[in-house]
Amino acid sequence: MSIRYPNGKRYQPTSPKKTASKKDYSFSNRGKTLEDEVNETNDYYLQHKVAVIHKKPIPIQIVKVDYPGRARAVIREAYYRTPSTTDYNGVYNGYYLDFEAKETKNKTSFPLQNVHEHQVLHMRQVAEQNGIAFLVVAFSTLERYFFMSSQTLDLYWDRMNQGGRKSITLDEFEQTGIEITPGYAPRVPYLDAVDLYLTGKESEE
Amino acid sequence: MSIRYPNGKRYQPTSPKKTASKKDYSFSNRGKTLEDEVNETNDYYLQHKVAVIHKKPIPIQIVKVDYPGRARAVIREAYYRTPSTTDYNGVYNGYYLDFEAKETKNKTSFPLQNVHEHQVLHMRQVAEQNGIAFLVVAFSTLERYFFMSSQTLDLYWDRMNQGGRKSITLDEFEQTGIEITPGYAPRVPYLDAVDLYLTGKESEE
Repeated sequence: MSIRYPNGKRYQPTSPKKTASKKDYSFSNRGKTLEDEVNETNDYYLQHKVAVIHKKPIPIQIVKVDYPGRARAVIREAYYRTPSTTDYNGVYNGYYLDFEAKETKNKTSFPLQNVHEHQVLHMRQVAEQNGIAFLVVAFSTLERYFFMSSQTLDLYWDRMNQGGRKSITLDEFEQTGIEITPGYAPRVPYLDAVDLYLTGKESEE
Repeated sequence: MSIRYPNGKRYQPTSPKKTASKKDYSFSNRGKTLEDEVNETNDYYLQHKVAVIHKKPIPIQIVKVDYPGRARAVIREAYYRTPSTTDYNGVYNGYYLDFEAKETKNKTSFPLQNVHEHQVLHMRQVAEQNGIAFLVVAFSTLERYFFMSSQTLDLYWDRMNQGGRKSITLDEFEQTGIEITPGYAPRVPYLDAVDLYLTGKESEE
């Protein structure tokens, strides 16, 4: 479905050199972005009727469109806009899920500048409506993945706004997030973490 | 949040003439598209903490991007893609909602060619996950609005595929849909219909 670009880079007009052969890709996920991995996971969940989760399109502000005769319309001037929500949402067994997937190459902490304030606000709004909002964070160098609920993220966000540290440490993810063990298919089984979260949440109520 | 274009037209490089004064707009919704009305309704629901429902961005296939020095990136060649899901989704009091808003100028029936097959399939997948998938249909000439669940839409869709009529009549909307009474704010209170639908659905189970 979605086009993949190697080496974690966004689309560039000149195509980046492939530094790994196809064989390497089948043995390891090096070179795949977290977005690729989450999209594959969502495809797996959809095909196996586990959940219906889609990535939202990137919001674009369109300024100029050409209509060349009978050919399809060509957008000739447009700009990237800041998304007002998270990237992923959908439904899992009646639950509304809403999340943002972020990766860092850091080995010891996740910088909060990777998350936008309006995304934090959106996740709060979702949680108020009894939706399940969360982050999927990849420490890509370590190949470790974590689920963190918006309620927990809020604590670290508030700490930052009160002058505290501007990141969440790996140790804090281990203590207050839920680790996701990557697999072959699905690659990043974040619904396992959602299940654990629901168990904990429901036992609290 | 979203830019509105008068007269139900999509963005055109040359700006369309405004045919109605601002005063007219405050007394009537003539000239507003259903999309405008649903977006306003969603803004109302969000501000009043009733629900968190957003329109998805239009999917665009980006082919060429310029990076003019320090200025922001300019998309120079891109094309509209066919959406693989519906336009709207979000969360309402723990329920996952997913819908498509469509309007017709017809006075007696809604042509099913307004709905794409992949959208029907997507709505089925949502319903299988216990999400609430539906259409909001406006008979704009009549200023009448209807909710129709994906389960009911499926019946008419199958009828068409078995060689039957290619539209849903107004009478059928009256009999098997739920009418939405338009108001001032929210303009198209479709959640009233969702509430009624949930009552009916829950009493069936």
